[in-house]
Amino acid sequence: MNWPTAAGSDSRPDPDSEYWDERQETRPPGERRDEIIEKIGEQVRYAYDNSEFYREFYSDVDVDPRNITSFEEFEQLPILSSDDIKQEQKEHPPFGRFLCIDEEDIARIYGTSGTTGRPKVFGIGQDDWDRIGEWHAQILWSVGLRPDDRVIITSPFIQYLGSWGALAGVDHLGCTTFPFGAGMEGQTEQAVEWIADLQPDALYGTPSYALYLGETAEERGHDPAEDFDFKVMFFSGEPGASVPSTRRQIETMFDCEVVDQGSMAEMTPWMSNSGCRHLENGMHVWNDIVYTELLDPDTEESLEYGAEGVPTYTHLERTSQPMIRYWSGDITTWERHDETDCECGRTYPTLPKGIYGRADDMLVIRGKNIFPSQIEDQLHALDDYGDEFRIVVEREGALDSLQLVVEVADDAETGPDEFHDLVRQEIKSEVGVTPDVTVVKQGELDRTQFKADRVKDKRELAIDV
Amino acid sequence: MNWPTAAGSDSRPDPDSEYWDERQETRPPGERRDEIIEKIGEQVRYAYDNSEFYREFYSDVDVDPRNITSFEEFEQLPILSSDDIKQEQKEHPPFGRFLCIDEEDIARIYGTSGTTGRPKVFGIGQDDWDRIGEWHAQILWSVGLRPDDRVIITSPFIQYLGSWGALAGVDHLGCTTFPFGAGMEGQTEQAVEWIADLQPDALYGTPSYALYLGETAEERGHDPAEDFDFKVMFFSGEPGASVPSTRRQIETMFDCEVVDQGSMAEMTPWMSNSGCRHLENGMHVWNDIVYTELLDPDTEESLEYGAEGVPTYTHLERTSQPMIRYWSGDITTWERHDETDCECGRTYPTLPKGIYGRADDMLVIRGKNIFPSQIEDQLHALDDYGDEFRIVVEREGALDSLQLVVEVADDAETGPDEFHDLVRQEIKSEVGVTPDVTVVKQGELDRTQFKADRVKDKRELAIDV
Repeated sequence: MNWPTAAGSDSRPDPDSEYWDERQETRPPGERRDEIIEKIGEQVRYAYDNSEFYREFYSDVDVDPRNITSFEEFEQLPILSSDDIKQEQKEHPPFGRFLCIDEEDIARIYGTSGTTGRPKVFGIGQDDWDRIGEWHAQILWSVGLRPDDRVIITSPFIQYLGSWGALAGVDHLGCTTFPFGAGMEGQTEQAVEWIADLQPDALYGTPSYALYLGETAEERGHDPAEDFDFKVMFFSGEPGASVPSTRRQIETMFDCEVVDQGSMAEMTPWMSNSGCRHLENGMHVWNDIVYTELLDPDTEESLEYGAEGVPTYTHLERTSQPMIRYWSGDITTWERHDETDCECGRTYPTLPKGIYGRADDMLVIRGKNIFPSQIEDQLHALDDYGDEFRIVVEREGALDSLQLVVEVADDAETGPDEFHDLVRQEIKSEVGVTPDVTVVKQGELDRTQFKADRVKDKRELAIDV
Repeated sequence: MNWPTAAGSDSRPDPDSEYWDERQETRPPGERRDEIIEKIGEQVRYAYDNSEFYREFYSDVDVDPRNITSFEEFEQLPILSSDDIKQEQKEHPPFGRFLCIDEEDIARIYGTSGTTGRPKVFGIGQDDWDRIGEWHAQILWSVGLRPDDRVIITSPFIQYLGSWGALAGVDHLGCTTFPFGAGMEGQTEQAVEWIADLQPDALYGTPSYALYLGETAEERGHDPAEDFDFKVMFFSGEPGASVPSTRRQIETMFDCEVVDQGSMAEMTPWMSNSGCRHLENGMHVWNDIVYTELLDPDTEESLEYGAEGVPTYTHLERTSQPMIRYWSGDITTWERHDETDCECGRTYPTLPKGIYGRADDMLVIRGKNIFPSQIEDQLHALDDYGDEFRIVVEREGALDSLQLVVEVADDAETGPDEFHDLVRQEIKSEVGVTPDVTVVKQGELDRTQFKADRVKDKRELAIDV
């Protein structure tokens, strides 16, 4: 059996090459699908043979999990949810019966932060970790990184897998890596001075953090565009880098390319959804690294290109703790590669708006579906916006209210009243609900050093009771 | 030339073996010295040939830097100070002319945190980083770690090299690694639950953090000794793990072995000073990994065993940014291995009290030399001590005053007045100065999530003017 592919190859393409592996990245999608279904067959059989969880989970299915040969058969396998993982790990702590290797052969343990309830635990073997590095290096190549580049990582090295995955990829690519972290007191001020001094070519972090870093730089008398001189910034963890106006703000502030990336911690940081250096917005879906379906949020049926649904992921080469048909809970739309028409020439499907929300984040207010990223986008498009906002949703009697607290820029040309009316009108026309707007001064709302937390839905308590 | 040694060997000894490399670790010191001087010769020649800094730095010396063949010759090379590095890096940013490889061949960039002035920058090549991992694995073997062990790292992954070095070593040893980090809001509470759940065999962090973690665990209803069940905790970054009473407190709180380690960020995290699982207190000096001299603080002359002085370090196999005769500024005493009589059988010199202070930290009060670690040790030895303290030194007229703020335990058996008098008397008899003591409740002083900052010397301002 030649599965899984051996990782750890040290061969890198010529720096001028657009591709890490041209054949793989540009072949006709139909040909790729043949390879994918073969890999799926191997992965499902491996998981079934080595994990008691999957043996039990697939005990009632109408197909033979040891011999999946078509997407139709594959789609008959049950969807794996976040709750399934939590339940399984609660009953069989700490890893659940997902683990297909011996516990002592786990190289790295990570997990979700789990602010409520038991966090999820991920055990990753050394061979998987090597593959993670190698695949991620390939994806970062499409982002435009090259071995000569110097890369700073400005997200916290904690349970959050994004930072560790970025590090594994950048290391494998052979860049000079500057694992700076984030979140300690005074660290952003230090980051500003280090970046001005060390002049990294690229930065990885969250979009919120980039804005915070840029503001901090300006306060300290730097011009991030001039003094930092980044070639590219790549992001994950939040929708921001595909929210058009936020993206433009980052591009303008730093005068550099912006690339959006993302996946789920469960699938680990291959960032198999990733923008490339040519893509205006959104991400390509590297579905031969992690196979991705877009499913109807209600029926769980497979969706055609153009539809909106939930990305559902399947590892294709994971020996330690494989996830098969993992329901991400995110919301996105997708397109065929020839509709995207990206100059890069890759033949993967594309998420043209990135991942703009989680099913959990969608606010249903007076019957309208609203994602916080829509409001973010509208506000960033206003000249006098002061770069931070909060959403509060309350129920007054039978009616929901949408309340916005919005910062107005220090150097605003409109007065607060005028800005207040403008926000109300723009948001109303975008989301169909008239918000109550409170205008506050720039800098009054907390900035985040990690992921932004902008929504407070006070109705949830009522629902929980 | 067979220098530097190739790193990255995957061969590990039998888990029952006391040694990673018995011949290297147990041979007669004289034989080791022959190898060390050979390595020194190669390292100095390499640095001289490849670094403009060293060519200039050694332009006036009376020996031939390309042909050092004896310790007498080596000791004629000038001492390299922290200020030398800062000055050089200021004049030739960012790395100074220390770098002996191309900038783009640097794999990792780290630095000092540099709260005041320009921080120091360290560029480390991939081969050096591999050697760091391998040597550190060897040292961690002596600590008692084995490939089956699960290890949690609870210090922040930031500029601080301790965390990254521990990770490199533990990875290379083949343990299951749990890079948890520290310093984010709520992270210690999460660490408590993860540790209780995942049951790591070992923890790396700072001694201050271990005490904070243990207290947090107790507040959340855990007994760290019972519920955590660590086999060993290994520490660096602070003197605590060799301060006898602090060490005993950690051992008792967690019912596990405590091992002290330490070096300088400049020398990078080989932790070439390290306790082993047999050593009661202090650290062995792995001087064939980083050559270590103990020098007189005033004359910079080499000191005999038994003396107190400043460890001065020399890389023996560093190709990227080698440091030669780097003056650490730390204070310690050392012993011949046969005076230590450690069961482990290693034939390295030993620092029986660890590194108990920095020359900078030494307080000269009314003519007495006082290290904060001495006061820490006295306080920890008191039954009713509440686990935290602060030192304030002021000058009133011509007289210095030593002020202590000390927590008394919640369940103290002595009253506050009695405790106050006891502290005054114990400290007076230890350091020879009578302190002004203020007793406060347990928990009143801030706990640190990283390195403790307990001393405020208000006299320094006066000196700076």
